[in-house]
Amino acid sequence: MLTKNRLEAFSDGVFAIAITLLVIEIRPPTLAAGETLAHGLWEQWPSYLGYLLSFLVLGVMWLNHHRILEPARRVDGQVLVLNLNLLLWAVLIPFPTAVVADFLRDGGADAKTAVALYGAVVLLAAISFTALFVGITRVGIVDELPPPEVVRAARLRFGLGIGGYSIALALSWVRTVVPSRFQTNS
Amino acid sequence: MLTKNRLEAFSDGVFAIAITLLVIEIRPPTLAAGETLAHGLWEQWPSYLGYLLSFLVLGVMWLNHHRILEPARRVDGQVLVLNLNLLLWAVLIPFPTAVVADFLRDGGADAKTAVALYGAVVLLAAISFTALFVGITRVGIVDELPPPEVVRAARLRFGLGIGGYSIALALSWVRTVVPSRFQTNS
Amino acid sequence: MLTKNRLEAFSDGVFAIAITLLVIEIRPPTLAAGETLAHGLWEQWPSYLGYLLSFLVLGVMWLNHHRILEPARRVDGQVLVLNLNLLLWAVLIPFPTAVVADFLRDGGADAKTAVALYGAVVLLAAISFTALFVGITRVGIVDELPPPEVVRAARLRFGLGIGGYSIALALSWVRTVVPSRFQTNS
Amino acid sequence: MLTKNRLEAFSDGVFAIAITLLVIEIRPPTLAAGETLAHGLWEQWPSYLGYLLSFLVLGVMWLNHHRILEPARRVDGQVLVLNLNLLLWAVLIPFPTAVVADFLRDGGADAKTAVALYGAVVLLAAISFTALFVGITRVGIVDELPPPEVVRAARLRFGLGIGGYSIALALSWVRTVVPSRFQTNS
Repeated sequence: MLTKNRLEAFSDGVFAIAITLLVIEIRPPTLAAGETLAHGLWEQWPSYLGYLLSFLVLGVMWLNHHRILEPARRVDGQVLVLNLNLLLWAVLIPFPTAVVADFLRDGGADAKTAVALYGAVVLLAAISFTALFVGITRVGIVDELPPPEVVRAARLRFGLGIGGYSIALALSWVRTVVPSRFQTNS
Repeated sequence: MLTKNRLEAFSDGVFAIAITLLVIEIRPPTLAAGETLAHGLWEQWPSYLGYLLSFLVLGVMWLNHHRILEPARRVDGQVLVLNLNLLLWAVLIPFPTAVVADFLRDGGADAKTAVALYGAVVLLAAISFTALFVGITRVGIVDELPPPEVVRAARLRFGLGIGGYSIALALSWVRTVVPSRFQTNS
Repeated sequence: MLTKNRLEAFSDGVFAIAITLLVIEIRPPTLAAGETLAHGLWEQWPSYLGYLLSFLVLGVMWLNHHRILEPARRVDGQVLVLNLNLLLWAVLIPFPTAVVADFLRDGGADAKTAVALYGAVVLLAAISFTALFVGITRVGIVDELPPPEVVRAARLRFGLGIGGYSIALALSWVRTVVPSRFQTNS
Repeated sequence: MLTKNRLEAFSDGVFAIAITLLVIEIRPPTLAAGETLAHGLWEQWPSYLGYLLSFLVLGVMWLNHHRILEPARRVDGQVLVLNLNLLLWAVLIPFPTAVVADFLRDGGADAKTAVALYGAVVLLAAISFTALFVGITRVGIVDELPPPEVVRAARLRFGLGIGGYSIALALSWVRTVVPSRFQTNS
């Protein structure tokens, strides 16, 4: 029981810090000559969008982390390693968020690269999450397991759901990128 | 009970990090030729003021967070979401604090924009806090509830109190901004 | 009991973050033309010294925080406020540490200003610590209290000890500053 | 028991923050004229490598920290000090990671200095870890101790294992550095 408590405490700490570090990427704007602060703040909208989106991604991940660990009675070495792997990708999220904030407004090939990087990191975090879920739904970790075919279906559904969610996320970004090429003109 | 524990641990972690990140915004001064360090440190007073104010805002928010969650016996999905929404705004506070620290000494329109941004983020945090309070004072979350009209009055009083507090805060800032235009002359 | 647990968890979090943020101030050196990395790293010794010293100050503060809170059976509003006040100064410590790291090697008046700032913040943290200690050694917070004159003597000794420790700290800094004016010559 | 809980909570917090701060060192690239973002991201590979390696080092250290503390029934002053000493070196790891990320691609003497610095800090962390392990395997800390020669052998094996691991780590870095002098050409 203690082991699980420390795993949860450590993971909560990492998620809490990763979600809070997102704000470090939002800096006071450097104003051009004659530019008002209001305009400078407005021009930083990709930073705010990135903050909101990554906060949601990490917040939902924390909520689900808590949900899938709840039935576990104990954790073994495999769960610890799978959990570290998930944290490796979750902690990385502020980096592509900063890249998107810096390059989204360009609207060209670099904006697409930035969005692809963001989507790739979130997708890898989602895959790691599914792997952790698979690692937890084993006899010995949880008290009782539903019939194998139910478990297999749940794992598949979960993996597909997270994959679909990530792809939808990536596509929605692309959709905001393409018109932005015509709209903004810094 | 576990769920509530992890919600509290996660929220404590986020508040602790947001309150500690405030110090990152206070940098050693870059001195002009012939300027003493003492003078350079003195010129940074808006940074210290912002640190103090935001520390108070986040500290009081943490104290109240702990107070309103105390009677709760369990937390459900709605409380989790309302709590994440509160954290979204609380975590953001270092950003307007940094903007105020950078632009308050200008004393002109930009200083007012900075103060307005600060007030807006704190107000949104206060509104989110009230929403969380409303979400917790429901049957099923707390063990026993006072008569409905008492609860309604408490929620209203709480909302008004926080709103009033925020407006007072914003006004007090404005009051410090207006004369500062005449006092400081960097 | 829960209240005390959350106070400890929050304080542990804040101390843990403040102590970890110290490393952010140590940056990879920017090398002059022809300068080796080894030389550049060596020239940053005030950063390492500041890291070590502030780590000790915050680490000892955390150890003592844990020691004085141990006998407390519960915490009230006054203890919460005194604790927040302590954290306000403890969190600030990375700032004077960075100032010392930037200005200690100059060796002149600015180095003394930097050391004075450092000493002042640590002293204010120590005073806040003593105030928290006084706030905890009251009937109702701890189960049983030694005779009043013993408590008074302990508080005084504690205050003097921390005060003396801080002054010794400040003096030792000054002692390192004065000769450094003659030794280093960047 | 409380003491051990707070020691674990504090250490978990510090490890969680140190591991999360690693991402701060990975910045969006500053592009040269005509350079694509994809190329700029690719050129930053030492940052990603450093992140991965330091995440592993800190993650494995946290796992082992949790393992060696598990049998301890209580902690005394010596364990607290040995633990703080371990954290002092663990927290420092983001600094040599950043130095390696900045200087590895140069491939010359500076790259070797950076790798040596990295190896030295990790080695000191490993030595501190062994010291903590020795401090915990004493009568009075754990409930029952195996025969003295078994304990001595375990401590030696542990120390050698960590030392060997560190040296292997350092060597593997050197091996990546030497060919990189011929491969990359920024």
